[in-house]
Formats: sequence, C-alpha cells, structure tokens
Amino acid sequence: MIKTLEWTDEGVMMIDQRLLPTEEIYPVFTTYEEVATAIREMVVRGAPAIGVAAAMGVALGARDSGTDDPAEFELTFDRICNVIGSTRPTAVNLFWAIERMRSLYSRLKDEGSTLGEIRTALIDEAKGMHDEDIEINRSMGRFGAELIPDGATVLTHCNAGALATAGYGTALGVIRAAIEAGKKVAVFADETRPFLQGARLTAWELQKDDIPVTLITDNMAGHFMKKGQIDCVVVGADRIAANGDVANKIGTYSVAVLAKENNIPFYVAAPISTLDLTLASGDLIPIEERNQEEVTHVKGAQLAPAGIRIANPAFDVTPNKYVAAIITERGVARPPFQESLRKLADN
Amino acid sequence: MIKTLEWTDEGVMMIDQRLLPTEEIYPVFTTYEEVATAIREMVVRGAPAIGVAAAMGVALGARDSGTDDPAEFELTFDRICNVIGSTRPTAVNLFWAIERMRSLYSRLKDEGSTLGEIRTALIDEAKGMHDEDIEINRSMGRFGAELIPDGATVLTHCNAGALATAGYGTALGVIRAAIEAGKKVAVFADETRPFLQGARLTAWELQKDDIPVTLITDNMAGHFMKKGQIDCVVVGADRIAANGDVANKIGTYSVAVLAKENNIPFYVAAPISTLDLTLASGDLIPIEERNQEEVTHVKGAQLAPAGIRIANPAFDVTPNKYVAAIITERGVARPPFQESLRKLADN
Repeated sequence: MIKTLEWTDEGVMMIDQRLLPTEEIYPVFTTYEEVATAIREMVVRGAPAIGVAAAMGVALGARDSGTDDPAEFELTFDRICNVIGSTRPTAVNLFWAIERMRSLYSRLKDEGSTLGEIRTALIDEAKGMHDEDIEINRSMGRFGAELIPDGATVLTHCNAGALATAGYGTALGVIRAAIEAGKKVAVFADETRPFLQGARLTAWELQKDDIPVTLITDNMAGHFMKKGQIDCVVVGADRIAANGDVANKIGTYSVAVLAKENNIPFYVAAPISTLDLTLASGDLIPIEERNQEEVTHVKGAQLAPAGIRIANPAFDVTPNKYVAAIITERGVARPPFQESLRKLADN
Repeated sequence: MIKTLEWTDEGVMMIDQRLLPTEEIYPVFTTYEEVATAIREMVVRGAPAIGVAAAMGVALGARDSGTDDPAEFELTFDRICNVIGSTRPTAVNLFWAIERMRSLYSRLKDEGSTLGEIRTALIDEAKGMHDEDIEINRSMGRFGAELIPDGATVLTHCNAGALATAGYGTALGVIRAAIEAGKKVAVFADETRPFLQGARLTAWELQKDDIPVTLITDNMAGHFMKKGQIDCVVVGADRIAANGDVANKIGTYSVAVLAKENNIPFYVAAPISTLDLTLASGDLIPIEERNQEEVTHVKGAQLAPAGIRIANPAFDVTPNKYVAAIITERGVARPPFQESLRKLADN
C-alpha cells in the first residue's frame, strides 16, 4: 500500500510527490514550519492529505513548542495554526483539520488538562485523523462502486487517489472499490497541467496497483468522450459549497461540461470534511493563483518565451448542474444538492 | 516579419519550430527526403505551411532528380510526390499542394515542355504558392477582422499563426488584421499539449509583434470563458469536410464545446485549400496518432512512469454545430456550411 504520510517520533514523514514518478523519496519534516512549507510547495497535496498533514503539523508544533507556561503555549498554538492555515487557500479540509485541532485544544484546556496531556491528545488526534481518513475513503468507495458499471472506462482528472489522502483515495478509491467488488474497470487519466498530477501521480499509483490506465493530455478528454470511449467521470474535490458547486483542480469544469455534452455522468467523490456549508455557492470559494514557473517550465526546461504573461489558477468551480452525484462516506448525494448535502452533513 | 520557410538555391530553408522559443535556427533542407522528414518530425507544421513545404520539396526533388529521360523523370516525380505525401495524414493542404504540382507537371508534359522547362515551372509554382499563401492570409484577415469586436479578448488554440503558414497566419492573421484595422485586441493562448505549439510558437510570435498575450494551460480555457474573460475563439484548421466539420489540433473540440456552453462565438480561419469537399462529414477525416514520447516526455524530461500506456491523437473533429463561421480568403461562410462552403469553393 502506498504510504502518503505518516506520523513518526522525528516528525511528519511524507512521500515527496514533486519527485514522483521518477524518484520515490520519503523525507521527514521535523518542524511545523517545515510541514507548512511542504504543504505550500506541494510535497503533499490533495485536499484530504493536506488536512491530515496540517493536523500533524499542528501536533508537531505543539509538541515541540518548548514552553511549560499555558498562556505562552496558547499564543504559540495559535501562531502554529495560523502559519499552517496560510499555506493554501482553496482546499477546505486544511481549515477543517486545523479547526478540529483547535477545538480539541479548547475542550481539553476547559477541562483543566495539563500541557502534557494536551500535547499527547493533539498527537493522538492527528494520528487518528490519518487512520480515519483511510476508513472514510473505504466507505466512500463502497458507496461509489455501485455507480460504476462493470466493464466501464472511467475518466479521472488530477490525482484523487491514495496520494491525495492518507491512503486508498477518493475518486480512485471508488475505482479500487469497484474492482474489489469484482468489476472490470479501466481508467483514462488526464495528465493535469500544469503540475501534472495525473501523469506523475495517478498513472503511477494505478500502474502500481495493476489497474489498466491510459494517460492522455487534458485536451484529449473531450475527443475520447465524443468517440464513446468514456462511460463516466469520477473526480475529487477541494471544497464543495452548500449548493453542490465543486471547487477542484483546474480543468475539472471543462471535463464536466464535456461530460454533460456527451451524456456521460460526472461524479464527485469527497469526504464530508470537504463540504463548506457556510458558502451558499461556488462563486464564494477562494481560488488559489500559483506561480508562473509551473506553466512556463517543466522539470527546469523552459517551454515558453521569457517574459510571457501567464495565468495559473490552481482550481476552478464546477456548477452543480453538471454534477450527477456527490459520493461521500455517508452515502451518495443527488440533486438538489442543497438538501441532499445538508442531510448527509447532519447525519 | 517571421520567416517560416523560403526557397533557396541550396534547398528549402525552414525555421526549426521544434527549437522555438529558446533557439531560433534556420536550417536548409537540401533533398526532398530531408524535406519529407522535416514535415514528419514537425520542423515545419501548420496545414498551410505544410502545403508550401510539400510543394517546395516536390520542386526540389524534381530539380535534383538527375535524369534527362522523361520516362525516368516521371517515375521519380511520382515517387517524390508519394514520399512527401506519406508524411502526415490529416492536413489536407499537403495533398492539395502535391496535387497542384502533379497537375502542373501533367499539363506541361502534355504541352510538350522540356524537362528543363518543367523543372523551372515546378520551382516557380512552389515559390508562387508561398507568396500566394501570404496574400490569402491577408485576405482572410480582412474578412475575419470584421468579426472581432474592438476591445475583444480572443482565445486561440495551437498555432495558426505566421509559423503555421508562409506568413501572417490564419487565426492569428485575423487577429493581426483586426489590430491593423485599429482595434484593441488581446489574446489568450492555450499552451496546446502535447507539442506545446501555443506556449512555444503562438506566445513567441505574438510577443514578437507586441500583441498582448496571456499563456494558459489547455484546461484553463473553460474557466476563463465561464469568468467572462473570453469574447470569441478563433482557431485554424487542418481539414474541413463538406458539411463544415473541422479537423484541427487535438483540444479544439473541447474549446468549441466550452465556447458553445458559454455563448461565445467559435470561429475557424482557413484557406479554401483546407476544404475537402470529397468528404461528407468529419467522421471520414483520418486522424494521425503520434508517438508516445510527445506525451510522456517534455524536452527529454520524463513526466510519467515508464511503461505507461498513452494515447496521442494529434487532431480531433469539431462538429459543424459548434462553429459560428468559417473565415476564408473568399469570404465568411455561415451555417448551413454544406451550402456556404460549396458556394465559396465554386467562386
């Protein structure tokens, strides 16, 4: 099984996803600042994995904050949460995870726990969120697998796999679960420019699991849909608004429009922690703009003329009308999402 | 002005487009076999430029065929045409250009011309097609410019510019003409994976001409359309069927669907030589499948796991229902294209 990230006594061990698929290296990030940088620079990425990494970073910072004064600890804890919270703006799981750590801290403080007890509890919480995430993905997989027809070819975009989570994956978890249920499933993976999560990560982890995968450039997806070679689309999500609008990796919106045009169901697989019911619609989701080198260079090689203006929004928003269903660990939400998502969230 | 290709006494000089934008090199291809290889390996690309290169390759081969025997010349001439015709299957301009050279040869032979006269005439014809192509693009530009609103931001895909033609460009010619007519026009250029003609060529030639251009990855186009930042789309074509279905660089179909979904007009700019009225619909257009390294590697750097299966169709077909107008050097064709294209072709 692919190990995306793991708590160790020395710090947070994470596979460096920037180096895949050519190098498989597992550095340990020994301070919360290092964890924050790893999240910002996409050593680790994928909304659920970011959430777990954030929780571990908070636990690590709290453990090593080197103070026995509760007031000072509180200030430091707050700073740690803020630093880790300022790494990436779109994936809501980051804020959800930090909020969960903050809540735990508040509760324990109110209960009169010692700093030692608090530190231990924060570490246990982060480790628990890791294992819980895998369980969530397996549950999501079981619900989602029923939507995948036997013999289907599934298109996916970006990497919503084991590498985007603590393990198993959201969208790829659905595919894994369908295969475990005895179905024959093949995958088309968009390479997902500019960061190439599809080419580097999805292709790598599906190949490792012997799941048949064909890598294509993003602009080929529509062509293969039109040719009748895609039966459904399954993607992950970075944030889902109350109305079911979905923020996900740039290019997801295009895939959704093309799927609709070709009468292909478009499914989103994401844990309940990806829901942001405080936002009425996807228009309110902040979209991260990343640096221009991601577009102009690949592995250090210059692709575009020097000085060219670029745009690099890391995510886009797919309006709910393109989404056939949202697969969560608590069941499958169908339109109207306003109601179905609320119901699952309240469960 | 950008010099895409030129007849010289030593052979066909062509800018090596594979090396742009980091190196600007103009090798001379001194045999017809070298010209054929240059077309196949995309030293030169773009349907109209391929047509002119093919004609020059035929002229070069005929000039240097080294025989004074008319029967032997005819066999050699036929072989030259076949070799050059077997380089790339989709762009019809290649076959159109070769056919024009064949027709000229037949006519001159029937008229009793000497081999010397025939050789000179073939060279003149190829050189003439070069200059004619620029004139055609300027005429296309004048017709197309009227479709571009003042202040518009135009999305284009691949490179349908000076580098795709003898000069000036088809889609980019329309943009150049709109600017020459006094309009303010900005461009969004899709990078156009896998060969990156947008990032490497379109960005380069627009930057050279001081036309404002923003480079994006292919999967961002839909996002910017949805955000209201694109006013129209103009692309080139490699072959247009009698019903107006358009074969063009892979990804064009996706752009067209996204444009329709966002109520943005989608225009195609192509010379009459791109029409293939022998094909009733785009389903009949042969689609070239290129090698897997174009997808798995960029400038020698490995992006995907070794041994991964890929697909690499170089073109797709956009059904006529997505096309608002086809801009030619003889005027603008509107739906129903079956009639409007026939009328322009017969002009």
